[in-house]
Amino acid sequence: MSSSIGALRVDGDRLWSRLMAMGGIGATPSGGCNRQALTDLDIAGRRLLCTWAEAAGCTARVDSIGNLFLRRGGNDNALPVVLLSSHLDTQPTGGRFDGVFGVLAGLEVIETLNDHGITTRHPLELAVWCNEEGCRFPVPLLGSAVWAGQLSLALAYAVTDRDGRSVREELARAHIPIGESVTRQPVRAAFEVHIEQGPVLEQCAKTIGVVTGVQHMCRYEMIVRGQEAHAGPTPMNLRRDPVRVLANVLPRLYESTAKHGDDARLTIGIIETQPSSSNTVPGTLRCTVDLRHPEAGPYRSLRDHAERIVGAALAGSGLQGQFRCAWESPGVAFDPNCVDAVRAAAAALGYSTLEMCSGAGHDSCHIAKVVPASMIFVPCAGGLSHNEAESAKPSDLAAGANVLLHAMLSLT
Amino acid sequence: MSSSIGALRVDGDRLWSRLMAMGGIGATPSGGCNRQALTDLDIAGRRLLCTWAEAAGCTARVDSIGNLFLRRGGNDNALPVVLLSSHLDTQPTGGRFDGVFGVLAGLEVIETLNDHGITTRHPLELAVWCNEEGCRFPVPLLGSAVWAGQLSLALAYAVTDRDGRSVREELARAHIPIGESVTRQPVRAAFEVHIEQGPVLEQCAKTIGVVTGVQHMCRYEMIVRGQEAHAGPTPMNLRRDPVRVLANVLPRLYESTAKHGDDARLTIGIIETQPSSSNTVPGTLRCTVDLRHPEAGPYRSLRDHAERIVGAALAGSGLQGQFRCAWESPGVAFDPNCVDAVRAAAAALGYSTLEMCSGAGHDSCHIAKVVPASMIFVPCAGGLSHNEAESAKPSDLAAGANVLLHAMLSLT
Repeated sequence: MSSSIGALRVDGDRLWSRLMAMGGIGATPSGGCNRQALTDLDIAGRRLLCTWAEAAGCTARVDSIGNLFLRRGGNDNALPVVLLSSHLDTQPTGGRFDGVFGVLAGLEVIETLNDHGITTRHPLELAVWCNEEGCRFPVPLLGSAVWAGQLSLALAYAVTDRDGRSVREELARAHIPIGESVTRQPVRAAFEVHIEQGPVLEQCAKTIGVVTGVQHMCRYEMIVRGQEAHAGPTPMNLRRDPVRVLANVLPRLYESTAKHGDDARLTIGIIETQPSSSNTVPGTLRCTVDLRHPEAGPYRSLRDHAERIVGAALAGSGLQGQFRCAWESPGVAFDPNCVDAVRAAAAALGYSTLEMCSGAGHDSCHIAKVVPASMIFVPCAGGLSHNEAESAKPSDLAAGANVLLHAMLSLT
Repeated sequence: MSSSIGALRVDGDRLWSRLMAMGGIGATPSGGCNRQALTDLDIAGRRLLCTWAEAAGCTARVDSIGNLFLRRGGNDNALPVVLLSSHLDTQPTGGRFDGVFGVLAGLEVIETLNDHGITTRHPLELAVWCNEEGCRFPVPLLGSAVWAGQLSLALAYAVTDRDGRSVREELARAHIPIGESVTRQPVRAAFEVHIEQGPVLEQCAKTIGVVTGVQHMCRYEMIVRGQEAHAGPTPMNLRRDPVRVLANVLPRLYESTAKHGDDARLTIGIIETQPSSSNTVPGTLRCTVDLRHPEAGPYRSLRDHAERIVGAALAGSGLQGQFRCAWESPGVAFDPNCVDAVRAAAAALGYSTLEMCSGAGHDSCHIAKVVPASMIFVPCAGGLSHNEAESAKPSDLAAGANVLLHAMLSLT
């Protein structure tokens, strides 16, 4: 690489204006975006991106699950590609940055190379994964899962939205050819830049999150079956009250989480009583227990403790119930070389950094299972995401794109 | 009274067969009853009762809020009446005994007097209160509240069901004359016999509950406002998690209730999280706290403790929230002479008894505010009520009617 490479910077204003233009497709009155996967708006967004990318000299290709690849040739086009990727689909009340930023930062990297007449050794591909959000078609990370061989194309095609329309039908409607399989191109390295979707970078006043992996995570469902009874005539000692089990379990779960260190996470997102009447002892209590930790050992311990806490409370109550792991996603460790590339790029550019583990799932979780990959985070205001008020600073977004540019350059 | 009076017993078989006949009007496939207030079925039930009562020599009168009075003259008809009362309306998935038993036990008392040629000094009135259940028209104890001057006739008329039909319209449809006011006849004593709707008599193996009053009761609503956040990226110390307040409050509320003795009651009937997503820290938590105690002092202390517990938890959490008393029903002490009459009748008849305080509201709560009144409870299977499986033993029902008969006789 020439010495001028180190001075290369993206055009933050161009990146910002394209984010605003893309946010106009599916814009909501509250300043957010509703551009769900494979809707007319999503297709319009992809078309706008193709227009920009083709003007920048890229060639477009769509695979059989609707993943879009925009290729910029390298000096040796027989070599594996370097992949810059994210997604363009949003939540129904989503923002203008989640996913979109990663895609347009990738485009900005390509434009910057063009502006300076730089050709990389490896070809570059900017990828847009299909149905990352999982809100319209209820399998998140759908396109990247198929690409990475984690989900069969047939199963992915059969997923339907609430109106009964399948992925297969909606792909066909968008003139995307239905196929027998998806071929995965050889990849040298894959990078994804994304808003953090949490408050840590902002709280720590850091510009770049060097993402070393993704947390281990699981969701338990606790169901306790008691007996409905009148609030008035039934003495406490004759009740079979499932809320007593909750009273026993809740403080212990929070205590156990605290004992597992600052990286442990506990979320009780859903609590429901049935029949949900103020003057009836509930017959049934249901709640969810989401547990996360970046390290395998403490994660397993967190799970074990939760199972023991709930098991003991159920046994002590004499009530029937269950505590069942309904979903688990094992942690991901990103490729050390890719993480090093991000770390070194941020350092060379003079950005403050924080080493962190993603708490949320991303397309890169699937990608990292089959090729070297890592992620870059930038702060978002108040940690808000999946929210129309989602926001990020132009300077932080430009910083993320610059790290993406230089991390990529160091591996091509 | 003649010495033969002491040997007087109701005809338990006649009482049972009438309960089954009345239960046929609105019978549900599961063996319950759906005969909601002022429906065609309710009117049919009242008509059947009138047929029986008129054959037994009673004269019928309906007041302007649809309370039905069936009068049997006494030796001195200028004297205040002795009132035997309950209700015929049921819950949508109600049983065949709640309310209906009290009405048909009153009729059985009248039939028994007829069978033995006994005329009381005071006239008797068998009363059927309108819309006790409060399920069709959402004001429970509506008819007795108007009769006792606790609710204006105009307000009662204006209450509508889910289809928008008012009490006034439905009374008119049943040919019950709309009026300006309800006149309350002078009453010497009022008795209501009812299934317990709780498990205590059955658990203690007692036949008769001598009901000394109705508990003090209130319902609080707790609302805690936190901040929605992703379960993954948000560290525990940066969350504003309203479930932590619940974890703090729940065990303390149960402990406080236990400290207030065996008569204290705590029911957390409704717990809800918003947005109710397993991987989102709830933005809002809402729950109800129903507190009851038969004695004024401990009841006030129970309320005070609950307010302090929730107040401290909210203050400690740094979250916004409230703990608001949404409804309160002060306790009722039944008339000592009426309670004595029940106690003495049960003793003379040789039934095992338990002195108890009603946990639920009854028409007699309103009646007791304006005239001497008390209640008699009999066991029901498993304490089940407001349930199609509601059930009671014929011998217990006959025992309750016998106590009603002799308590009434001792005051006429």
